[in-house]
Amino acid sequence: MSATASVTPDVVFDTLFAYQQTAALKAAIDLDLFTAIDEGANDTEAMAKRAGASVRGVRILCDYLTTLGLLSKSGTQYSLSPASAAFLSRKSRAYMGTMASFLTLPDLKKNFDDLTGAVKRGGVLPAGNTVSEENHIWVDFARAMVPMAMANAMAIADVIDLKSDEARVLDIAAGHGMYGIVLAQRNPGVRVTAVDWAPVLGVATEHAHQFGVQSRFGTLAGDAFTTPFGSDFDLVLITNFLHHFSVAQNTAFLRKVADALKPSGQVAIVEFVPNADRVTPPMPARFSLTMLAGTPEGDAYTLDELTSMLMDAGFEGVRTHNLPTPQMLIVASRT
Amino acid sequence: MSATASVTPDVVFDTLFAYQQTAALKAAIDLDLFTAIDEGANDTEAMAKRAGASVRGVRILCDYLTTLGLLSKSGTQYSLSPASAAFLSRKSRAYMGTMASFLTLPDLKKNFDDLTGAVKRGGVLPAGNTVSEENHIWVDFARAMVPMAMANAMAIADVIDLKSDEARVLDIAAGHGMYGIVLAQRNPGVRVTAVDWAPVLGVATEHAHQFGVQSRFGTLAGDAFTTPFGSDFDLVLITNFLHHFSVAQNTAFLRKVADALKPSGQVAIVEFVPNADRVTPPMPARFSLTMLAGTPEGDAYTLDELTSMLMDAGFEGVRTHNLPTPQMLIVASRT
Repeated sequence: MSATASVTPDVVFDTLFAYQQTAALKAAIDLDLFTAIDEGANDTEAMAKRAGASVRGVRILCDYLTTLGLLSKSGTQYSLSPASAAFLSRKSRAYMGTMASFLTLPDLKKNFDDLTGAVKRGGVLPAGNTVSEENHIWVDFARAMVPMAMANAMAIADVIDLKSDEARVLDIAAGHGMYGIVLAQRNPGVRVTAVDWAPVLGVATEHAHQFGVQSRFGTLAGDAFTTPFGSDFDLVLITNFLHHFSVAQNTAFLRKVADALKPSGQVAIVEFVPNADRVTPPMPARFSLTMLAGTPEGDAYTLDELTSMLMDAGFEGVRTHNLPTPQMLIVASRT
Repeated sequence: MSATASVTPDVVFDTLFAYQQTAALKAAIDLDLFTAIDEGANDTEAMAKRAGASVRGVRILCDYLTTLGLLSKSGTQYSLSPASAAFLSRKSRAYMGTMASFLTLPDLKKNFDDLTGAVKRGGVLPAGNTVSEENHIWVDFARAMVPMAMANAMAIADVIDLKSDEARVLDIAAGHGMYGIVLAQRNPGVRVTAVDWAPVLGVATEHAHQFGVQSRFGTLAGDAFTTPFGSDFDLVLITNFLHHFSVAQNTAFLRKVADALKPSGQVAIVEFVPNADRVTPPMPARFSLTMLAGTPEGDAYTLDELTSMLMDAGFEGVRTHNLPTPQMLIVASRT
């Protein structure tokens, strides 16, 4: 035992029990405990009363969240961490609690029930592919991921220079539609064409009405790989899309995108982009595993890989921008 | 956004995705990747060949484990962290990989499918109670948890002074039986009576044969709360038992234990014991949530709480010892 005397197995237990962290945060969001604390219900009795829950259950849950750093505890009172205050209290404009319902969908979590099998095969069988028109999760995605998309969309609208008063924007796998909708809100001359499967486009169209840009918001229902896009677009948005597919599929797809752009038109890509070592920063690096478990050949691509795909597809001038999420914006121009 | 400009939502994503950590470690243990690296198969090709897995899957999994600190990566080569080398390689005597199958049992994980409901109620309904004779998981527990128990059992055998050549030891909810078996191995005059449900005692009896103490190993099948123990024991072992029950149940149970002991006989308790703040150290503090999700009234009790139960039940001289796991040994003597 001498070699191991100073090493504890805590990390082993911690990792094998990590699934409980997901359940704990989901429960706290469901019970709206972060908002309760933010509004002054900061002991277990007050929180339990407000949430219609047991004092014992709230105490154990809040203590657990404190061990994760999502709360602080002083005596019998809990307070929010900076991240909880910013993203988990409904009082915050950046509230992300709605995403929990999507990120913890049983249909997504079950992809990890046979991760060993996915590692053996190198991906899922086609029947297990998360990316399919029949998969209802994409409607859930479109409804749940608005907060994250809004933060990114506003940052992108700050960065993208559309160069003309009358700009046509194609939004690939638009989902909630917010990337195009925010651009249209910011630029009165922008017309958006949102591509996605028909049921998902219903959500995007709702959002276009909600944000008052419906007169400049069109849709194109179908598979992005096979549906004709038309031509002469000024900008194509490809957000959270490329990670589902292989390098070869993406390169071919980006060629199709180049063909839909005006000369010198731009592509704006939002992706999880790990460093070349593939193990930093943690969030984008870890995202590869979600793709291993949920797609046949998807991945979180490095900037070198994305740049190669873009150049092979006829783009140049690749540049990157940070986003307020663990993602990156990559912009390139058609050669 | 100014108030949140310096705060990232990483911890929110990280926690909602934490269930993937459990799956990743389980897959790596299933594929025996830690042993592979320990034996020199330290790049993805060599590991994939050895594990009968895809290079792509092994690469993504090992990168993910690196982000968790369970591996290190240099170029294309992976190496073990000190904790992985000590507890996840089969070359180590302290290998704990067998525990993964128990700690990630679907029957245990499903307790967390409705954690919100458990928080509302303050525990599970009796039908959801993990602690029942019908629950087959306790046989799995008895087989899987030997490594952790061995580490603790050896530490306890170092500490407990049995004071007489002919000592009778009662092992409550013996499970694998290792706590009593190790004491019997160390002390030729020790006779063990193991209490548990009959199917679990089958595993303990196997272990008693395996470790050569079967002639001094007896069993008592039944519920520990209602089965008569007899009397005149020198030591009663109560390991990983009290956390499943309420303070009142435990106090009554400890009175029954006191009645089974000789005057000045000892009780040795192994428990997850958080500090009085209930939020440190992380591992024992977090264990309360497992009890909230799996039992009607169980908890990880503080030392003050355990001391009160012991004193109310007729014990004195409470003393504690550290163990090589995230648990604590509490010893007390019958008054």
